Amino acid sequence: MSETEPPGPSAEVQIRVRYAETDQMGVVHHANYLVWFELARSEFCRAHGIDYRQMEADGLILPVVEARVRYVSPARYEDEVIVRATVIEVRRSTLRIAYQARRGDDILATGETLQILIEKQSNRPRMFRKEIAGRFSGQV
Amino acid sequence: MSETEPPGPSAEVQIRVRYAETDQMGVVHHANYLVWFELARSEFCRAHGIDYRQMEADGLILPVVEARVRYVSPARYEDEVIVRATVIEVRRSTLRIAYQARRGDDILATGETLQILIEKQSNRPRMFRKEIAGRFSGQV
Amino acid sequence: MSETEPPGPSAEVQIRVRYAETDQMGVVHHANYLVWFELARSEFCRAHGIDYRQMEADGLILPVVEARVRYVSPARYEDEVIVRATVIEVRRSTLRIAYQARRGDDILATGETLQILIEKQSNRPRMFRKEIAGRFSGQV
Amino acid sequence: MSETEPPGPSAEVQIRVRYAETDQMGVVHHANYLVWFELARSEFCRAHGIDYRQMEADGLILPVVEARVRYVSPARYEDEVIVRATVIEVRRSTLRIAYQARRGDDILATGETLQILIEKQSNRPRMFRKEIAGRFSGQV
Repeated sequence: MSETEPPGPSAEVQIRVRYAETDQMGVVHHANYLVWFELARSEFCRAHGIDYRQMEADGLILPVVEARVRYVSPARYEDEVIVRATVIEVRRSTLRIAYQARRGDDILATGETLQILIEKQSNRPRMFRKEIAGRFSGQV
Repeated sequence: MSETEPPGPSAEVQIRVRYAETDQMGVVHHANYLVWFELARSEFCRAHGIDYRQMEADGLILPVVEARVRYVSPARYEDEVIVRATVIEVRRSTLRIAYQARRGDDILATGETLQILIEKQSNRPRMFRKEIAGRFSGQV
Repeated sequence: MSETEPPGPSAEVQIRVRYAETDQMGVVHHANYLVWFELARSEFCRAHGIDYRQMEADGLILPVVEARVRYVSPARYEDEVIVRATVIEVRRSTLRIAYQARRGDDILATGETLQILIEKQSNRPRMFRKEIAGRFSGQV
Repeated sequence: MSETEPPGPSAEVQIRVRYAETDQMGVVHHANYLVWFELARSEFCRAHGIDYRQMEADGLILPVVEARVRYVSPARYEDEVIVRATVIEVRRSTLRIAYQARRGDDILATGETLQILIEKQSNRPRMFRKEIAGRFSGQV
């Protein structure tokens, strides 16, 4: 899409803009892009064999601790938008993902999140299991 | 407010319309009224000494099983809206509440919900404890 | 799906439950079903050649004036849900649609909306053009 | 609150966490913080005599072009949260605001947005009127 796009394992999801996602400016409200990024993240997990539902059932959560969005061009009701998530860093307990939302060849927004793996009961960081880290890194 | 308003114990919450609650029609998206009704319901609990957080911690939930909204007049960004919840029926395991949203003297919407008390683990209906039923009925 | 399902022209949309649509009960928050019904309504328009974006550009809006939902079974994160919209009544200025959300063979919710065609500038009801009424009625 | 808090004109809004704002992690979904920041921004405008509704009626919009959030500690249902917006930079056509959400003495999140003043019809940047720039700068 662009020379600045990060390399790394990725996944894409296609969405159609919902009426409820617009605001009175006539375009998608900016908070929804964080929701869209999450959809691409969920798709990444499904596509790479990571069962996030099971992770939560096992007492682990992966909350977002940092998020950034750069809004380039507005999205409108009924637009077909492709959102891509690319894993750019996997460390012991953290996961950094970059995002790009586009409509055809138009970039709508880019962004990044940092997540940390937490054991829910103790509220303490936990290391990713080797197999899971490998899947996020695109090595499985 | 009107002769058709139901009698019963009630509570009111004042909200200011959020930009994110509007849609491209320039008014509040209709799904948000169910969220507003919920705010009035939460306020009812607080005002009548019902600790809903504790109920959930005790393994009980009170999901909405029916909802109705009649939209009378649109709400707009920054409007100050009063939402009133009035308990109209408390039975062994169910709770029926009526709602009214107004801006000044203008009715914006009315509605009703039916909720049922469920034990989360068994997914079975449970009876309200006498004291809780009394609080919902306005007898405490 | 069931003998009580209304006859009439219909359309279906498939959605995957978003994490952001869940609440702390662990299931989809009940207000989202109105958003899902709207997705099926939008799909109906697309599938039947009704250009709602153009209608709004022409100064007409079709706000929801009544909505009802009956919640049968909870939806959970990542569930694949089919939402069907069936037009059950088209009158001079009003449109009544019934909805059903299901996951596989399980009904999750049913509902109904009443909408009215309004000229935005005058805030007055307007008659549907014959061709549009025909499309909603499934006669085109 | 902390030595790193930016100086500048500010405004605060108090909110109570809505049930619908939680997700199945049992805490507020991270996208809602952008909505909360917007509430503090709206309060800033009201408190400093800036009529944003009128600005939009005059054909100007002030979309967010960049947003950042750092999530420090989760917020939960019914929490009382104070969100503060502090204007940290006003330039010819852009506005940079810093945010802090806290519950009592606990910082929940910090963030920043960059907005740009756009003439809706031409989709071109516009300069802030001197009086408006002064109000954002805290000089009026």
